[in-house]
Amino acid sequence: MSQKFINSHAVVYKKFGDPRKVLELDTLKIPAEPEKEQCLIEWLASPVNPLDINRVEGNYAFREEPPVIGGTEGVGRVVKAGPNSRFRAGDHVTVFSATTPFWAEYGVIDDDELVKVDNRIPVELAATLMINPPTAWLMLNDYVKLEKGDYVIQNAANSGVGRNVIEMCKAFGYKSINIVRNRDNIDILKTDLWKIGADHVFTEEEFKEGSRKFLKSINARPKLALNGVGGKSALQISSVLEKGGTCITYGGMSKKAHEFTTSALVFNDIIARGISVGMWARQEGNLDAWNHCMQEVQKLAVSGKITAIPMEKVALSDFKKAINRSYDDRTVKQLLIMGGKNATSSRL
Amino acid sequence: MSQKFINSHAVVYKKFGDPRKVLELDTLKIPAEPEKEQCLIEWLASPVNPLDINRVEGNYAFREEPPVIGGTEGVGRVVKAGPNSRFRAGDHVTVFSATTPFWAEYGVIDDDELVKVDNRIPVELAATLMINPPTAWLMLNDYVKLEKGDYVIQNAANSGVGRNVIEMCKAFGYKSINIVRNRDNIDILKTDLWKIGADHVFTEEEFKEGSRKFLKSINARPKLALNGVGGKSALQISSVLEKGGTCITYGGMSKKAHEFTTSALVFNDIIARGISVGMWARQEGNLDAWNHCMQEVQKLAVSGKITAIPMEKVALSDFKKAINRSYDDRTVKQLLIMGGKNATSSRL
Repeated sequence: MSQKFINSHAVVYKKFGDPRKVLELDTLKIPAEPEKEQCLIEWLASPVNPLDINRVEGNYAFREEPPVIGGTEGVGRVVKAGPNSRFRAGDHVTVFSATTPFWAEYGVIDDDELVKVDNRIPVELAATLMINPPTAWLMLNDYVKLEKGDYVIQNAANSGVGRNVIEMCKAFGYKSINIVRNRDNIDILKTDLWKIGADHVFTEEEFKEGSRKFLKSINARPKLALNGVGGKSALQISSVLEKGGTCITYGGMSKKAHEFTTSALVFNDIIARGISVGMWARQEGNLDAWNHCMQEVQKLAVSGKITAIPMEKVALSDFKKAINRSYDDRTVKQLLIMGGKNATSSRL
Repeated sequence: MSQKFINSHAVVYKKFGDPRKVLELDTLKIPAEPEKEQCLIEWLASPVNPLDINRVEGNYAFREEPPVIGGTEGVGRVVKAGPNSRFRAGDHVTVFSATTPFWAEYGVIDDDELVKVDNRIPVELAATLMINPPTAWLMLNDYVKLEKGDYVIQNAANSGVGRNVIEMCKAFGYKSINIVRNRDNIDILKTDLWKIGADHVFTEEEFKEGSRKFLKSINARPKLALNGVGGKSALQISSVLEKGGTCITYGGMSKKAHEFTTSALVFNDIIARGISVGMWARQEGNLDAWNHCMQEVQKLAVSGKITAIPMEKVALSDFKKAINRSYDDRTVKQLLIMGGKNATSSRL
């Protein structure tokens, strides 16, 4: 009996380069019958992350040689489970791997690599569940012992991680102090962040000007600073920590080195460290803690305590539009929709 | 019976300001008979540290309101011990306190505050034993578990702390990689550092150019980076750490914020922290560890495994010369000699 295949569109790159130039739509043949412990997956959605851009450019720490299918996180639905698979048709799943080909209509994946995603979680959030929410969760749970009412300060408060931090602080009873870059319509952004649970929102300039007065008014110092920006912004949030506080870096959007003052390090005894959730999860001895983290994140997602960031949905066949927009306007995340029924723009 | 006094010259400041202007020689009356648990001390020598300058300027973290006698570390000899004192005349002693008046000929100090210094330790080293050597010792012993043959990298390798780090690495069997600023006669400096036990010495430019090749040649990465400079120099030494390595900041000579890359923090999982030995020693629960540290430092000093940095001795009465020179040429430490017999320049 000859093996059957199905056609799957996929966004691939055959050499490193500018994603706007080197990414192309290809058609791949996918085995229609998964083996014993495999599943045939129909991919539903996958975001365009900065990480994806870096990977295509060849600038990411882990360089996977092309040809490669794009995408680093997403969600799919099991179309057909192999005879010994622990999954069922209809299950929502994701994959935790740096090299999973999400930007495609279909894929056959080993059970080992699949993670069950609660079907009640909205697709937009399910597609972005494996990087930002666990980053936020681990930073709030794994470094500093926080009590209800304690303060957490962060920059990049409107980023995916930033918004999850706001929502989780709200859920856990911590107070969040949120720094954002100034922009047109800053009041709309502030209102948006207040709505999802932010306690305090400042532009960098407002905080520079008013931090002394503000800290006096709350009569407390944050124990934890979360830094996704770098440069002077890292200095700003780490300088107001309480003695012995911790600053965790998870990104460097400013593309500048992270700055800390002598006073913060030497006299205020702060600890500066970093987290890459992918590396954290794969670190020896962290597997149980990682599974626990993902369970907690899914609970928060099911109960609506964390939500997806604003996203623009684009059909897989229109991927160029999503890639271009992710350069033009980084405030709205681009989400590729691949699901068989929605893979072409005419159907969205 | 009326109390007897002795006259003691002292270098004092009566208001904060430029030390070259506000420091002046005064004559104080010191009780000639120490009480039960006190000692009359003849101060022998005290260095001019950057910390002293900052204190006089009013720029140090702990602001003690003038009038104040200068100096933050030094060594003295017990002239007369009180009836219940645990010290004997002739004992060498120092004081561990941020507010001890070292820049004077005589003082009466409570036993509680006095620390015995082994009389075999040369006066230059004894006078500079309480800040730099324990800073170096704690950084090498208290943060990272080092094994013989492990690499330690540092900047400011020619500073007081830097030279102690070199000597202690040698004594403990660690390999030191030492970065210095380029200067005239760099070869003389390199030879000097090799002589006291440096394994590798580079200028910042040499290390920038050749670090990749060098690290390949030793086939290892340092576990520990020691930073007394800040700015890009912190970035340089922290970027070559092994995964999970630690960078400890003890000073910021460049007066620039300390920089760390996203890659070092996020993907190489380094930890950046700081130490102030004064605060460390006074931290709750650290007293036994501090005493142990000082015992070990004294052993190293007695056996000649750590040595004093190059010093220029200046009589107390010539203090202005020492203060001015500490601005003009920071490569040679200024040591004030106060001992009754040497307090005036004509006797030096």
